[in-house]
Amino acid sequence: MAALLFRGSLRLGVGLCAPCPLRSARWEKAGEVSRELWEKAGKQGLLGINTEEHHGGVGGDLYSAAVVWEEQSYSNCTGPGFSIHSNIVMPYITSYGSEEQIKRFIPQMTAGKCIGAIAMTEPSSGSDLKGIRTNAKKDGSDWILNGSKVFISNGWLCDVVLVLSVTSHETRSPSHGFSFFLVENGMKGFIKGRKLQKMGLKAQDTAELFFEDVRLPASALLGEENRGFYYARQQLSQERLLIADFGVSASEFMFEETRNYVKQRKAFGKTLGHMQTVQHKLAELKTRICVTRAFVDSCLQLHEEKRLDPGTAAMAKYWASEVQNSVAADCVQLHGGWGYMWEYPISKAYVDARIQTIYGGANEIMKELIAKDIIHD
Amino acid sequence: MAALLFRGSLRLGVGLCAPCPLRSARWEKAGEVSRELWEKAGKQGLLGINTEEHHGGVGGDLYSAAVVWEEQSYSNCTGPGFSIHSNIVMPYITSYGSEEQIKRFIPQMTAGKCIGAIAMTEPSSGSDLKGIRTNAKKDGSDWILNGSKVFISNGWLCDVVLVLSVTSHETRSPSHGFSFFLVENGMKGFIKGRKLQKMGLKAQDTAELFFEDVRLPASALLGEENRGFYYARQQLSQERLLIADFGVSASEFMFEETRNYVKQRKAFGKTLGHMQTVQHKLAELKTRICVTRAFVDSCLQLHEEKRLDPGTAAMAKYWASEVQNSVAADCVQLHGGWGYMWEYPISKAYVDARIQTIYGGANEIMKELIAKDIIHD
Amino acid sequence: MAALLFRGSLRLGVGLCAPCPLRSARWEKAGEVSRELWEKAGKQGLLGINTEEHHGGVGGDLYSAAVVWEEQSYSNCTGPGFSIHSNIVMPYITSYGSEEQIKRFIPQMTAGKCIGAIAMTEPSSGSDLKGIRTNAKKDGSDWILNGSKVFISNGWLCDVVLVLSVTSHETRSPSHGFSFFLVENGMKGFIKGRKLQKMGLKAQDTAELFFEDVRLPASALLGEENRGFYYARQQLSQERLLIADFGVSASEFMFEETRNYVKQRKAFGKTLGHMQTVQHKLAELKTRICVTRAFVDSCLQLHEEKRLDPGTAAMAKYWASEVQNSVAADCVQLHGGWGYMWEYPISKAYVDARIQTIYGGANEIMKELIAKDIIHD
Amino acid sequence: MAALLFRGSLRLGVGLCAPCPLRSARWEKAGEVSRELWEKAGKQGLLGINTEEHHGGVGGDLYSAAVVWEEQSYSNCTGPGFSIHSNIVMPYITSYGSEEQIKRFIPQMTAGKCIGAIAMTEPSSGSDLKGIRTNAKKDGSDWILNGSKVFISNGWLCDVVLVLSVTSHETRSPSHGFSFFLVENGMKGFIKGRKLQKMGLKAQDTAELFFEDVRLPASALLGEENRGFYYARQQLSQERLLIADFGVSASEFMFEETRNYVKQRKAFGKTLGHMQTVQHKLAELKTRICVTRAFVDSCLQLHEEKRLDPGTAAMAKYWASEVQNSVAADCVQLHGGWGYMWEYPISKAYVDARIQTIYGGANEIMKELIAKDIIHD
Repeated sequence: MAALLFRGSLRLGVGLCAPCPLRSARWEKAGEVSRELWEKAGKQGLLGINTEEHHGGVGGDLYSAAVVWEEQSYSNCTGPGFSIHSNIVMPYITSYGSEEQIKRFIPQMTAGKCIGAIAMTEPSSGSDLKGIRTNAKKDGSDWILNGSKVFISNGWLCDVVLVLSVTSHETRSPSHGFSFFLVENGMKGFIKGRKLQKMGLKAQDTAELFFEDVRLPASALLGEENRGFYYARQQLSQERLLIADFGVSASEFMFEETRNYVKQRKAFGKTLGHMQTVQHKLAELKTRICVTRAFVDSCLQLHEEKRLDPGTAAMAKYWASEVQNSVAADCVQLHGGWGYMWEYPISKAYVDARIQTIYGGANEIMKELIAKDIIHD
Repeated sequence: MAALLFRGSLRLGVGLCAPCPLRSARWEKAGEVSRELWEKAGKQGLLGINTEEHHGGVGGDLYSAAVVWEEQSYSNCTGPGFSIHSNIVMPYITSYGSEEQIKRFIPQMTAGKCIGAIAMTEPSSGSDLKGIRTNAKKDGSDWILNGSKVFISNGWLCDVVLVLSVTSHETRSPSHGFSFFLVENGMKGFIKGRKLQKMGLKAQDTAELFFEDVRLPASALLGEENRGFYYARQQLSQERLLIADFGVSASEFMFEETRNYVKQRKAFGKTLGHMQTVQHKLAELKTRICVTRAFVDSCLQLHEEKRLDPGTAAMAKYWASEVQNSVAADCVQLHGGWGYMWEYPISKAYVDARIQTIYGGANEIMKELIAKDIIHD
Repeated sequence: MAALLFRGSLRLGVGLCAPCPLRSARWEKAGEVSRELWEKAGKQGLLGINTEEHHGGVGGDLYSAAVVWEEQSYSNCTGPGFSIHSNIVMPYITSYGSEEQIKRFIPQMTAGKCIGAIAMTEPSSGSDLKGIRTNAKKDGSDWILNGSKVFISNGWLCDVVLVLSVTSHETRSPSHGFSFFLVENGMKGFIKGRKLQKMGLKAQDTAELFFEDVRLPASALLGEENRGFYYARQQLSQERLLIADFGVSASEFMFEETRNYVKQRKAFGKTLGHMQTVQHKLAELKTRICVTRAFVDSCLQLHEEKRLDPGTAAMAKYWASEVQNSVAADCVQLHGGWGYMWEYPISKAYVDARIQTIYGGANEIMKELIAKDIIHD
Repeated sequence: MAALLFRGSLRLGVGLCAPCPLRSARWEKAGEVSRELWEKAGKQGLLGINTEEHHGGVGGDLYSAAVVWEEQSYSNCTGPGFSIHSNIVMPYITSYGSEEQIKRFIPQMTAGKCIGAIAMTEPSSGSDLKGIRTNAKKDGSDWILNGSKVFISNGWLCDVVLVLSVTSHETRSPSHGFSFFLVENGMKGFIKGRKLQKMGLKAQDTAELFFEDVRLPASALLGEENRGFYYARQQLSQERLLIADFGVSASEFMFEETRNYVKQRKAFGKTLGHMQTVQHKLAELKTRICVTRAFVDSCLQLHEEKRLDPGTAAMAKYWASEVQNSVAADCVQLHGGWGYMWEYPISKAYVDARIQTIYGGANEIMKELIAKDIIHD
């Protein structure tokens, strides 16, 4: 038993997310989870874990935060967008926000009373951020924001959303003319479009957002003007590490689920688990998962030590999401017909996995980043 | 341009099934298509195509039937279970049925007024047919049927269903004690359970069926007593060939859909189709598809010549369904975030593909069949 | 048993090439086969099979030629470069050569008394033919040839070699300035460099060739001046089909070899062939091979009908060579330690396979060709 | 740049093994390296590094030993069997040997004057050790050894070889009746058969060994009678870890070699390294290697802490050897035709890699071991 490398059987599952089929079905039908769940999560200290206490967070280290996101992933519960909120949106505010912005948002976000989102992707620009057309123009000290965003997780429930916008067309390189704004629910001209119907992530509120002449005060600017791209680049490694760790934790879940299944399921007079081909398949799956776990754990350590470079984060995101999908496909197969039935967790896990190779920068973009280090080294 | 081997761009799509988003959404929500659609298909001569005219069918050859099932698959329309009805259920009746049974069912089935299904799988026996427990016991000249079936396509809409049941426990080998019965909708004790919620095939009515002391007249027995397994073995090659051809036709659809997408989608200042990595990926996809097409076409020809053996049919089913899933995964990826949105056909195609490696005998069972020829040759 | 698609057990092996270990070892040590073997092959009618009789060939069709090259490949005998000679070099001469050239070379080549080679690749230009620097300059009615070639099969034994050379720098596109010359052994300035030591193909004489002010008469020009590229493009499909068919025939050989091995080899108290994982592996191998055979057979038919386009030929070459290598790797593995021993045929088959994805245009170039049809269709 | 995870560019190469083409060619031709090399290695302190000083070794820790074996692997020098000698054979002697045996062999082995080998595999028993038939029978206090062994690394040069033999047929389980003997060169009846000709590892002396009534004194028994299997099981984890680390170090070498090649090689008017498909391939390779490195490093740490269980060692061996082979195949491909030429290091690396999935227990056996933990946990 490889205690260090194989966490599968050590998991507890976060009670909050544990698979209550009734609640799951309700969330899936609604295409969103309840606000109460967010507040419960806040009360239990599950939000903003590694945000420092003096900023209004819980004050844990990266590993504590990782425990929460891993357990959520391990409990096969992809509805609540806690980790985007806690580990992507909050760090932007604490890293680049003014004291006033931090005070205004972080304690509320830690309590689950203010839900955060981040909006970069646009309909005509996928992984190519330089194609963004949403723009903010100065009007006195205010900014007037116009444009639209798509595929925004927490997009329907969010109270505040970080919007990446063009703020200058006259910079030396295209990437120097972008800024982030904190746009709040209820602002005039900020319209939430429909919740998008997806192959999976059925309980997650992924939405389109529209900005029609939204007037933003100067205080809505996050950090410095035209530094948006630089900020994004700094934060993306953590986002990618997060996705990687989701992937390996979800893989651990799928493996355990499948192991249990084949150990009890009978066919041809014995359990599936007694067949040599099933055993070798499980051995391959476990190996793939343990190898990936070792790599992602190394990356977590590097990140805690502030040494995780973008190329390595890209490797983790690309690799772990591919492994997750291959594990998902094999685990569905081992479940036979039941693996295709929605009532079986493996079925949801399979379709939820599919987006992991795409969001956070498609894996093809990851390869571009990795290659850059190789060729120009 | 490899006209012979690459049908993609030659497809027309069957109008009936062509992707009308509104109708599709209605079907998906209902978990079934309308009976009207079945009758329309009947009127247009799309059902029972290669059933001989003197039996009440359309009288086409295997290739004519293949045109229909390929076009339906190519139009990404998996809701209506036409091909199971026409190419699996009807052949059982014409091959083993009495003249009376043929007269009673075939013309109605050809007209789309009587929908057929076949029920072999049970909750505790997946691909292992010998584990079947549904049984029929003689009571005078009648039979009393008890048991349950699961994963039955057309299970909710069906008017008649072929039920594989144990009829004797005293045969020389387990496989000699099974028979098929024609069970009709409305018979007392024949209960349709819920429509099963699935990862994909959202518009197809896959159901559980229960038989509680269903009294069947002697005329409900299909063919001879205790010959059920033998019949199944004879018919399975056609079923597997059908699945294989679904797979390659669906792959052709996904390829064309994706080719069109990457030729218009822009990123980084050019279309995706201009990137070398995208081009090579498309080349790999096309090759995989053409190779599979050549093989399935060869199998179609063998089958028309009554020379398709079970091992070769198993190869076709296993290979084509694997290719289909790999093509689906790559095509979703090339669509980026949009590939995950339900409104994009590729998204449905991806989840619909997933069952193909499982039903009709899981691919692991196919390998057992293929291996038998290799080892005992 | 899939007679049509699986030729493995139907093979006879060409006696001439049949694996005589002693002779093989001698050839491998020498890095060449004997000239006697070529003459024997000529006497037995194995050379120039589908060259028309009135040109001095044997007069068979493409399928007859294919039988010979398949059987040679199936007999795991890669030393004698018969098929390059018969199916690549001879067609150039009969297609573009003058009556005089045909008379001078074809009968001798059919008899195995004149061995042919073709020289396109250069040290600094691999699959990129436009990078060729070997050039021929007019001097009166003669040409003066300078340059060097590398990786030339039959390069050491050849009596005549077709040399692709730059003949003009002033054409509208770079590809319009190349011509082929028939260079003969013994011409002054034509120097055969060393036989190259290779990972595999140990008995094949692959050589470097040097041309230092070789004076060629006008009659050495093949076909028209500056049409070399056009000729090469016309002939390459046959070359690629040949490689593809080598690949699938070699795969059939490796499969049979391995099947025999696992059926007799014992471990853990039974034969390897009784293990489920071995059986599934064999099933996967056979499927991969049969699928590829169906495709290559379709291409052969297309080619015989003069309908094989470059994109489809490229698919065949790329796919079959990849399959061959994957089959080789799996078959070595199934042989265990013995698979690594040179005395076992599978060991040679493994290293011989490796070049197939590279020569005749690397598979990456094949993908470029395939993609061209996809994107510009 | 992921310093922690990617060692490639940090390597120095062990001078001793550095690729001197002339010397390499001589070794390859001879099928063995010189005894002088062994003695030089001894003088430089490269043998027996983590054997404790009081036993006559160098006294380094596991990591020091790993540096040496990684550097040898990274220098693409597989001829000298130093690591089997130092990290497999010597630990047996120091772990189970008598003080007398330790004194007799270890200092000489550390000095490179006594070369060690270990002989378990037999012609008819590959990975199935229970099939061993070599046996030793008591004759007074002596033992009479009969049998033969195959695939023995260092088998030709060895001065001492550990021979696993049946010593009892009456134990409760077959695995309780085996013992190891220290058999020395020159003993009567100990015959070294031919050096085996292999696909790769051309400079390594792999031999057959025969034992014909070899009379062994009681002092030739290693450790306790009938404990051989138990000893082997204890030592195999280190052997497998060693193979895994060879694999990842060789992969690092192949990657660097290939990176350098594509950065200078020109085609189609630019370097290969400028092509997007090449860049993505390199990104995939680097990721595969870094992921494997992280895992193997974790295993090294576990092993140093005496916590490496057989299942995890099996995962490392299986995974790293598969990755190595896939890296080798891709790197040869990126070299084009040159990758097939023996003078290019990548060519040797490719064939040397092939044995890694087979020896030390075939990867199929590894999966059996891994599966045991999964199913019986």
